Amino acid sequence: MSIRLAIIGAGVMGADHARIFAEHIPGASVHVICDASEARARAVAGLYGAEVATDPAAVIARADVDAVVIASPDATHAPLSLACIAAGKRALCEKPLSQSSADCLAVMAAEEAAGARHIQLGFMRRFDQAYVEVKAALDQGRIGRALMMHNFHRNVETPSSDFTGAMAITSSAPHEYDVVRHVLGREFTAVSAFQPKRSDAVVAPVMMVLETDGDQLVTIEINNNAAYGYDVRAELVGERGAVALHPVAYSRTDSDLGQHLPYDADWRGRYAEAYRRQNKAFLRFVTTGEFPAFAADAWDGYAAAMVGEAGVRALASGTRATIDMGARPAFYARKGA
Amino acid sequence: MSIRLAIIGAGVMGADHARIFAEHIPGASVHVICDASEARARAVAGLYGAEVATDPAAVIARADVDAVVIASPDATHAPLSLACIAAGKRALCEKPLSQSSADCLAVMAAEEAAGARHIQLGFMRRFDQAYVEVKAALDQGRIGRALMMHNFHRNVETPSSDFTGAMAITSSAPHEYDVVRHVLGREFTAVSAFQPKRSDAVVAPVMMVLETDGDQLVTIEINNNAAYGYDVRAELVGERGAVALHPVAYSRTDSDLGQHLPYDADWRGRYAEAYRRQNKAFLRFVTTGEFPAFAADAWDGYAAAMVGEAGVRALASGTRATIDMGARPAFYARKGA
Amino acid sequence: MSIRLAIIGAGVMGADHARIFAEHIPGASVHVICDASEARARAVAGLYGAEVATDPAAVIARADVDAVVIASPDATHAPLSLACIAAGKRALCEKPLSQSSADCLAVMAAEEAAGARHIQLGFMRRFDQAYVEVKAALDQGRIGRALMMHNFHRNVETPSSDFTGAMAITSSAPHEYDVVRHVLGREFTAVSAFQPKRSDAVVAPVMMVLETDGDQLVTIEINNNAAYGYDVRAELVGERGAVALHPVAYSRTDSDLGQHLPYDADWRGRYAEAYRRQNKAFLRFVTTGEFPAFAADAWDGYAAAMVGEAGVRALASGTRATIDMGARPAFYARKGA
Amino acid sequence: MSIRLAIIGAGVMGADHARIFAEHIPGASVHVICDASEARARAVAGLYGAEVATDPAAVIARADVDAVVIASPDATHAPLSLACIAAGKRALCEKPLSQSSADCLAVMAAEEAAGARHIQLGFMRRFDQAYVEVKAALDQGRIGRALMMHNFHRNVETPSSDFTGAMAITSSAPHEYDVVRHVLGREFTAVSAFQPKRSDAVVAPVMMVLETDGDQLVTIEINNNAAYGYDVRAELVGERGAVALHPVAYSRTDSDLGQHLPYDADWRGRYAEAYRRQNKAFLRFVTTGEFPAFAADAWDGYAAAMVGEAGVRALASGTRATIDMGARPAFYARKGA
Repeated sequence: MSIRLAIIGAGVMGADHARIFAEHIPGASVHVICDASEARARAVAGLYGAEVATDPAAVIARADVDAVVIASPDATHAPLSLACIAAGKRALCEKPLSQSSADCLAVMAAEEAAGARHIQLGFMRRFDQAYVEVKAALDQGRIGRALMMHNFHRNVETPSSDFTGAMAITSSAPHEYDVVRHVLGREFTAVSAFQPKRSDAVVAPVMMVLETDGDQLVTIEINNNAAYGYDVRAELVGERGAVALHPVAYSRTDSDLGQHLPYDADWRGRYAEAYRRQNKAFLRFVTTGEFPAFAADAWDGYAAAMVGEAGVRALASGTRATIDMGARPAFYARKGA
Repeated sequence: MSIRLAIIGAGVMGADHARIFAEHIPGASVHVICDASEARARAVAGLYGAEVATDPAAVIARADVDAVVIASPDATHAPLSLACIAAGKRALCEKPLSQSSADCLAVMAAEEAAGARHIQLGFMRRFDQAYVEVKAALDQGRIGRALMMHNFHRNVETPSSDFTGAMAITSSAPHEYDVVRHVLGREFTAVSAFQPKRSDAVVAPVMMVLETDGDQLVTIEINNNAAYGYDVRAELVGERGAVALHPVAYSRTDSDLGQHLPYDADWRGRYAEAYRRQNKAFLRFVTTGEFPAFAADAWDGYAAAMVGEAGVRALASGTRATIDMGARPAFYARKGA
Repeated sequence: MSIRLAIIGAGVMGADHARIFAEHIPGASVHVICDASEARARAVAGLYGAEVATDPAAVIARADVDAVVIASPDATHAPLSLACIAAGKRALCEKPLSQSSADCLAVMAAEEAAGARHIQLGFMRRFDQAYVEVKAALDQGRIGRALMMHNFHRNVETPSSDFTGAMAITSSAPHEYDVVRHVLGREFTAVSAFQPKRSDAVVAPVMMVLETDGDQLVTIEINNNAAYGYDVRAELVGERGAVALHPVAYSRTDSDLGQHLPYDADWRGRYAEAYRRQNKAFLRFVTTGEFPAFAADAWDGYAAAMVGEAGVRALASGTRATIDMGARPAFYARKGA
Repeated sequence: MSIRLAIIGAGVMGADHARIFAEHIPGASVHVICDASEARARAVAGLYGAEVATDPAAVIARADVDAVVIASPDATHAPLSLACIAAGKRALCEKPLSQSSADCLAVMAAEEAAGARHIQLGFMRRFDQAYVEVKAALDQGRIGRALMMHNFHRNVETPSSDFTGAMAITSSAPHEYDVVRHVLGREFTAVSAFQPKRSDAVVAPVMMVLETDGDQLVTIEINNNAAYGYDVRAELVGERGAVALHPVAYSRTDSDLGQHLPYDADWRGRYAEAYRRQNKAFLRFVTTGEFPAFAADAWDGYAAAMVGEAGVRALASGTRATIDMGARPAFYARKGA
């Protein structure tokens, strides 16, 4: 019996989720595509024989919708998550849960009141083979205790020219916050932020130094206009060794006095397999009710928002900002943690 | 409406195909698992709710079987292919079609008599991203006209100790023959074979030098007991540059005065995505009747058998053996070729 | 006619300089080895037929000494530099000129009063092929304007267990300060410093974030107990691309399911060629009187001391420390700058 | 006391040797430059204050010449070597000793009659760090017994358009023959040769398969018009692992959706350090009379000529050619062999 999915949002991410489920994941059917723009919904729905809708609340409530993918604009993620919880539907919610930590707390409260996990958050890097191996190297003791993690996030260019350093911290960097927390199994306690100046009108890189409750240091470079390619790097430095993402390239060309490896132009090739694994994990969650061991939840969404808020304060003030997460609720305890 | 598959052979390859279709390819259902050993068939069928059978001819004839995967022992591939053609069923047949070129000719004759393609041969490397990029570099003119291709096929160890150099040529090397023919768009005309001696009881590597009807040279090392890891390499050398497979590794560890990249122990990780793409292409073939542009067909199976037969002669005699393929039948013409 | 060198200090660095001049640099003779320990001086002198001395002031004054290499303990570098200036002898002074910026100013004053350059400082990385190429990529416009530089300095372990974070900043990091200033052609204006905690007794890494008068950001990791190998990395990030040191390894071993590249255990292999180029440049300086274009001078020693002093303040206070270098004296102007 | 060198031949190689001794090797003086063209001799001699000569026999006989570097045209190497032996002078002779094995035997006979080694042959790759490490990996047992060695020799382009496949075998490939013999400690017993066709007028690559008296296989690609860069590769495959040259690059550039490593345009950068080590070893040979452990001698020159002669026969006939070296004379026995 196939799980009937409603996908809310028919933009780039929503269309991608529809394609991933339809082409790669047996056991799910793309049942409804919902978008404020009926034309946009129709364009995606037509590819998969799905129904078209424009009212997300109504879609979430439909009896013939078994589960929901939230891929609409960021500001709608928290309210739609609340609607899914109210309707007793599991949702795969794209990041962020909300850029506001208060909104995240509200989702957590609703979920806890409902007595069961409903929201799986779309921090897909946790499922990426490279980060899986980095985490395994640490967990298996191959590099000793973790001391530092260095992270680099580089895009070719920002989608729009009014992108700001604060947006780099609240919109691009959360993938880094989350995967570092996941790998280290630690929370952030403080953040400092720095920014050089560019000679042109686009946003300059932001360099963050974060501290964890395990006395570790984490550096994050968010470079949204790196120009040369889509390039995500990470290195985890332990007391006895280090483990790093190794760049994936399938072929190498020798020509013109050089050896050349290609970079992707955007993130989709790099994380194609991670998205598939994440979405498969969501399907198992829907089917079994058991929250996936590796996936991000509402607490993780709250943590990302808290770090983002502190990062914005740090960048604006030029001083170190502390982060007080509070204790992780028992409801969100990890197995074995 | 899902395509109902019968998988003949429940060994390693058959079980893998069942898993790939069940877990990764929407639109197909693993309907029957057939194996001479009912227990073995049952073990695989149980995972996917499939029926169990022991008589492949009966399975192929079943009205509720839409398409067939042939993954039984090598010697059964040609007769079962003939049965599928007779039954008007499309089959994804594991390599080899047959180690006997005469058997391959018989399959070709039956297919041509039937007036339509039925057999897609499981040379999955054609779908591997690395080889796709190597072929694209050539086709796009980035390295000039092709002059040579160097290929290295290394396994950790042979499954059994009675593996011979002739088996390296007829059983392991066909993946190399096929992917080189695919990349170059050329046929082989001659082969020489060499073999060093090992100090232990296992089979020594075989080194082959092949010539094509495009005046190119191809070297192939088949090293079934390379010990250090599963490692497949290829480099295509053109008149203006070269393009090579780049080894895929996701993480890198620094420890003990060294930097370490992992090798796989066998082929499954390396070609996981290629198998998925190949099997998806087969599903489209079944659905549309249009033979996949990249896939291998019976002619390709015949070519592999011809090269293998000549290679065995060359190794036994210590001299260059010529290969006379005859003309490619119009029935097997490639689009655009 | 050979240049007669006196080498002051017969420890690791002094012995290395004697060996470099004797074995690799025609035109120089190792004439006197001077060390407070006569036995230590004798051990080195005996290898090259040099004379032995214990009083550096007397050695510097000798008429048959044409030039001096200062490789004695750090605290003696400034006074011996002053003695060389007073004697009108050119000196290749190991880093640091002094850890005290005041002492560096005194050397600068003496040199300016003498009216000619006398002191070449041993920041040999400026002559390292990798940094030469990084600087060339920037100067030739291949990566656009410089935005950030990331530097990693990792040793296997500290020589002694009483090494502190402050010492990492004043003793290990100056190589980084200098080569970054050299590559960027900029001065530092501020520094922040962070330190995680280790679980054992050895010094934890120090992470520094520096700002330049060109609005660039520079990160430096000093990790004196990295355990896995001697590993120096640097990446210069520009507005249109990036250029990085590529690790040098001569061979690669495949074994035991891994591909392995070796790390050096210490710095000597990594910088062997840089030392030779530096020392050749010193010989030309002695012969021609023209200060080498790439070499570090007393101003560079002063800059390193200023950054080190600010770095120690930053680490102790947990806040950003500013650096006020003052204007570069005309006497120390670079050609073409 | 400096060794006074006469360098015979003031072309590219002679000028390079003069520079290497003058700039990098204390203890040698470039005393005479001899060339059939006095103007060419003068151009090099002027750089180092050397005398000029045009008659090599007279130069070799001079009492104020302590040792000789033979870098004149190939055909003169054997006669000039004989002249050096007759004069009791040690010579560093550029490869080849002679392309004729008979000529090489004559030099061996003269040397043996003289009762002492005189000729060090310029196969400098034996001193290259990469090959040193490959040999060490084998000798230390890290990859098990040697089975195969794969070698690739690629130049950007041939100096002249009348370069032939036979010349690739007799002029370019000897570096490969020699370093393989050195690494394996074995002699070649047979050779096969193959050649694809190019679409333009320049010489096509030659692919050789050689067999050793240790039952090993060796492949050599000589690709004199590879276009993309100077690229020498080698991989030694053992029964338990493999070791390969790792390409040396000092920096890496990220730009334009690619990561780029530079290739050299010719051999000089790649082997700069190997030449220095070789020439230093020659100086020690001259000084001590003890033949350098790693260096090539007249027997090695004879071996290269024998393989070249067989290779030409193999290419012309299209069949495997055997090589009968005869026994290595006791006079040329290696220490410890």
